[in-house]
Amino acid sequence: MKFKLVYSSLIVFALLLISMGVRSKDHPCLLLTKNGVQDIRKGIEGKSLFNKTLTKTKLEMDAVLAQPVVVPMPKDAGGGYTHERHKKNYEEMQQMGILYQLYQDDKYAAFVKNMLMEYAKMYPALPLHPVQMSNYRGKLFWQGLNECVWLVHVSQAYDCIYDYLSPKDREYLEKNLFYPMVKFFSEDNKATFNKIHNHGTWAVAAVGMIGYVMNDNDLVEKSLYGLSKDGKGGFMRQLDELFSPDGYFTEGPYYQRYSMQPFIVYAQAIQNNDPQRKIFEHRDHILEKAVGTLLQMADSNGAFFLLNDALYKTWRNTELVYGTDIIYNITKDKTLLSIAADQNRVILTEAGLAVANDLLKGEAKPFQQKTILIRDGADGSQGGLGVLRMEDGDNQTCVLMKATSQGMGHGHFDKLTISLYDNGNEILKDYGAARYVNIEAKNGGHYLPENDAWAKQTIAHNTLTVNETSHYDGKLKVAEKYAPTITGFVDKENYKEVSATEENAYEGVKMERNLIMVKPEGAKNPLIVDVFKVKSMTEHQYDLSYYFAGQLMSTDYEYDAFTTSREPLGTKEGYQYLWKEALGKSKKSSASMTFLNDSRFYTITTSTNPETSLFLNRIGANDPSFNLRNEPSFMLRDRSKDRTFLTIIEPHGNFNADAEKTSSSASYIKDIRFTDVDKTQIEIQKINGDIIKVDTRNKTCVIKKQQ
Amino acid sequence: MKFKLVYSSLIVFALLLISMGVRSKDHPCLLLTKNGVQDIRKGIEGKSLFNKTLTKTKLEMDAVLAQPVVVPMPKDAGGGYTHERHKKNYEEMQQMGILYQLYQDDKYAAFVKNMLMEYAKMYPALPLHPVQMSNYRGKLFWQGLNECVWLVHVSQAYDCIYDYLSPKDREYLEKNLFYPMVKFFSEDNKATFNKIHNHGTWAVAAVGMIGYVMNDNDLVEKSLYGLSKDGKGGFMRQLDELFSPDGYFTEGPYYQRYSMQPFIVYAQAIQNNDPQRKIFEHRDHILEKAVGTLLQMADSNGAFFLLNDALYKTWRNTELVYGTDIIYNITKDKTLLSIAADQNRVILTEAGLAVANDLLKGEAKPFQQKTILIRDGADGSQGGLGVLRMEDGDNQTCVLMKATSQGMGHGHFDKLTISLYDNGNEILKDYGAARYVNIEAKNGGHYLPENDAWAKQTIAHNTLTVNETSHYDGKLKVAEKYAPTITGFVDKENYKEVSATEENAYEGVKMERNLIMVKPEGAKNPLIVDVFKVKSMTEHQYDLSYYFAGQLMSTDYEYDAFTTSREPLGTKEGYQYLWKEALGKSKKSSASMTFLNDSRFYTITTSTNPETSLFLNRIGANDPSFNLRNEPSFMLRDRSKDRTFLTIIEPHGNFNADAEKTSSSASYIKDIRFTDVDKTQIEIQKINGDIIKVDTRNKTCVIKKQQ
Repeated sequence: MKFKLVYSSLIVFALLLISMGVRSKDHPCLLLTKNGVQDIRKGIEGKSLFNKTLTKTKLEMDAVLAQPVVVPMPKDAGGGYTHERHKKNYEEMQQMGILYQLYQDDKYAAFVKNMLMEYAKMYPALPLHPVQMSNYRGKLFWQGLNECVWLVHVSQAYDCIYDYLSPKDREYLEKNLFYPMVKFFSEDNKATFNKIHNHGTWAVAAVGMIGYVMNDNDLVEKSLYGLSKDGKGGFMRQLDELFSPDGYFTEGPYYQRYSMQPFIVYAQAIQNNDPQRKIFEHRDHILEKAVGTLLQMADSNGAFFLLNDALYKTWRNTELVYGTDIIYNITKDKTLLSIAADQNRVILTEAGLAVANDLLKGEAKPFQQKTILIRDGADGSQGGLGVLRMEDGDNQTCVLMKATSQGMGHGHFDKLTISLYDNGNEILKDYGAARYVNIEAKNGGHYLPENDAWAKQTIAHNTLTVNETSHYDGKLKVAEKYAPTITGFVDKENYKEVSATEENAYEGVKMERNLIMVKPEGAKNPLIVDVFKVKSMTEHQYDLSYYFAGQLMSTDYEYDAFTTSREPLGTKEGYQYLWKEALGKSKKSSASMTFLNDSRFYTITTSTNPETSLFLNRIGANDPSFNLRNEPSFMLRDRSKDRTFLTIIEPHGNFNADAEKTSSSASYIKDIRFTDVDKTQIEIQKINGDIIKVDTRNKTCVIKKQQ
Repeated sequence: MKFKLVYSSLIVFALLLISMGVRSKDHPCLLLTKNGVQDIRKGIEGKSLFNKTLTKTKLEMDAVLAQPVVVPMPKDAGGGYTHERHKKNYEEMQQMGILYQLYQDDKYAAFVKNMLMEYAKMYPALPLHPVQMSNYRGKLFWQGLNECVWLVHVSQAYDCIYDYLSPKDREYLEKNLFYPMVKFFSEDNKATFNKIHNHGTWAVAAVGMIGYVMNDNDLVEKSLYGLSKDGKGGFMRQLDELFSPDGYFTEGPYYQRYSMQPFIVYAQAIQNNDPQRKIFEHRDHILEKAVGTLLQMADSNGAFFLLNDALYKTWRNTELVYGTDIIYNITKDKTLLSIAADQNRVILTEAGLAVANDLLKGEAKPFQQKTILIRDGADGSQGGLGVLRMEDGDNQTCVLMKATSQGMGHGHFDKLTISLYDNGNEILKDYGAARYVNIEAKNGGHYLPENDAWAKQTIAHNTLTVNETSHYDGKLKVAEKYAPTITGFVDKENYKEVSATEENAYEGVKMERNLIMVKPEGAKNPLIVDVFKVKSMTEHQYDLSYYFAGQLMSTDYEYDAFTTSREPLGTKEGYQYLWKEALGKSKKSSASMTFLNDSRFYTITTSTNPETSLFLNRIGANDPSFNLRNEPSFMLRDRSKDRTFLTIIEPHGNFNADAEKTSSSASYIKDIRFTDVDKTQIEIQKINGDIIKVDTRNKTCVIKKQQ
């Protein structure tokens, strides 16, 4: 009877729990699962990449265990001691948590517990961070953003040691640390939490993940649908709006990489806890597309295209290790294994184990970098990024046109700008961001003033600046209303093209750019044909820039070099940062300049009028703190109503410094011209008499050999 | 009887030959020998580096066989078509010759024969090369030098196919090609042939080697002892005078590398033909020392120090493959095998086979880069090069002081200059040569005018310029009369030092530099202490430069930056090539500037007077053809009689762009000072209160911890 009574009570209690919506929960439940951990413990093979990563992690963390736990009072900005210490702390806790699950050794759990207790002691009384450089200040960090990143990691650590902790400890931590932090991220910073922006993604992922661990479904719902759970904010709307149907994240590849981590990590947690949500299938598998598209936005070394505010990052970065492993475990796309092999590490979860085991079985297939048009905008109508490629690996030539929407606050005023990668190097450059991330001496590691004043401005890009004014007058709100239109995309074997127009960047000025990559029969390297048409009813000053990486070898026109005194190119909108180094004019109908980058020569040959001014500029004027890189540009200037710039970019020859051998150091182009009034037929006359004919109507490139 | 007659006739003929000094000769006899070839054919192992190199060579040459033989009329300067074609031709002939010997396939010999015949047809009527840019013009090449290099290679090819050719063919080739060429190198260019200079070495090696092949002992004697065989010129005197007792070649490492090839290759030929000369034992094994010393004059990546006229070269260059393999085969020094492994190829001779086989047996030992004083001058009394090192591999810190003699025409006016390599990078730079070797657009590949006007001048170096005038007034003839004096060299575990004085570079001005590397207890990186004392009875302007590689992070003094207009630093002796970027003064008794290079920070902290001008300069003024690299310098200027510059160069911290992590980005030095009147005791006060005491009398470095 007694037994029966207890039994009934239990049933009643369970029913009560269910009626309260509180299911009991196994831990871990976020990236690792209780079942998964069993599998991993069994499935670790000696030589696998999983085991290699695990061994390395264990070695590092065992060394950390010998050190005291330090949770300093927040004080420094990015790069400073307390900032870096709190970053290290969340990484260490996350890794200790995993080690505890895999090795079942209490020392790892104790580390996490002790550190969490320190944080819980400190957090309730913590004011806003003393460094006031962000509109979104945190408490542990100068940016609230870093604090969300902290919780995305620490929720995993807490998840891993959940069962190790006593209910009392858990209550203490949740009351003093996690709930106050959740409140800070959500109610106290409502705007960011509900924002359709990467800051919002980190915030909702942090709240949703700790929600899962604490078994608080209310937090999960808020993270998915916004603070009011009305779907106007939250993770689902971010998935719907921040990516284009092709998986392009509107801020560009640098921030796509950054936000990939909370997207993918939180999606994995949702999948493990609420598989019925089919989160990876959402919106026609948008997360798989996002990872795939991001991998396409990299050069042959795996470095992401520098677009908008961007610094050097590769697909070997941690965020992409998450992305590659977790998506591989969903799709089993064997080409992702090649990326994983290049990353040379895996995440220490079931997904990482699957990658490592399949790599060990030799299942990897080559990852193919493609010629691809990546549409921007939630519905794909906000322009896009055209990427043209020929050849593979280091021999790849890749040219791209950015004709995307503005990309929010990190966007640049750079409509129709182009970049060229070749021979494993960046040849025509996009400046990227003006920032030394986490270096205190440089504005506390934050974006430098020159990021707005220089790097975002139109003149800092390989595109057209009209009347020394940036696109949309440099106004973000205006720029966000418009996007270029992609007018053509061709991917034939020896003829590739992307074309776009932009009619709103300047009032009464229509810009159109056709970027074509051809490989004439018998040619060693592809040629880039760049046709930039600008039309207006009134006269304007047109400046077309090419930022080239390398040392100038020669020009075929004469110039005056400013050798004994130097002045800036202008006074505003980025022009004040350029020194004029030389100014010339061509006596022919074209002008060319040749530069050397690494082991290859490049010649830019461009059509000119007698009045066309040919500038050689260099970044670095008005830079008293030496914040900028002193890179050179070749710039064409004309005053007219209509102007069509025809430019050929020609990689050629070889320079072997070691062997002191040089071949084809001079351009093979003698002249270039259009042969029809519509300017659709281009003739490139070679020095040897051959003529290369590029037909942009029929999309062909043929070579007429000299008789 | 008939037999006896024949027999007697043979004896008579043989005696006749001997009396004529003509011994019969086996072929090949230069780098390969008849016996050696037998061994190689037997000894090629499947996996060896020899076989790998051979397979690669065979693949390349088999492809060449499919192409027509082209021997164009000489026309172009360095980098131009005919120049490069003739270079390729000699390499191809050399390799085809070897393949003929090893595979005994006539197609290789036929290739060499056909090409030689083309050369023999053309050569007798060939005028001097049309490009008139060298005082030492050739016929096939614009420089006679290249032509000697041609024959050093082609003599080997001829040697390899000697037995394949008919006596008639040989006679034709020798009469029309080789003897005329020998005459051109020796009698027609007597001065160069007899010159104690790398040009002379290539000339005598070429003549001696073809002499051995043609069995012409007269040519060999002339090559060894000069055209008059009096020992005033020739190979033996070059061995005696061009190297110091430590094996330092007076022109510096760049030219030491270049001339190593004829020295070593010709010595191997001498060894094979006249072993009784014991050429490798000559002058206490000077050639072994020369190779060993050259390998010490490289950074941790194997790139040779940029001193005097120098461009980027490494020990992976062909010249060093010869040097390493041939010397290894003499000394069996197992550390050379590590160099050979890094070179990843061997020469296709007995020496290369020995290297490859011993590598395969796992006999390689690590090659140790050392702290070393390398004396200059035939008797070792002409100053020297002090190289201080701590740690190994990429973690190596290496600082050097150049206190050598002028080094002939390729020498720079750079007494007591220093360079710093750290973290696998060049940190304090020597400009090296102003030249784009073999790039036609840049002065035909020759040294640029800026080489004399800028690169050789004192202000282009990390040393002291007095009164805006170069050392010895920039006069080679004067400079060649003097050399600095090495006054100290210390190699203790945590204290290394090289000191030198120079009293003749400026009249009435005595310069003394102490360069010290210390590793304070507990420090992560070594510190460089640089004490530059200058004394004079009269007042002068003293400019001390540091050319730093990297982006300026911060200074601890205020400066005026020339942000809207820029002017050159001076008007002559190299000053005209520097833009003044900023000028400041320190309000303390020291000034510091921090820059970032790759993943590490560097701070230069230097003692100042209130009047000390602190310049930030950048190379690039007065450079209308964009011939120079726009590198920055930090420069101190004082006017006084005596002045002691105390400078600390401090590598610190870490910047991980990928992981966005930064540590110790700020200098840990608060102040620096001498604590005795003789300026032998240096105190470096750290921000944390610790004091580092460097005692240059007792050669110690101790740290006094804060209480």
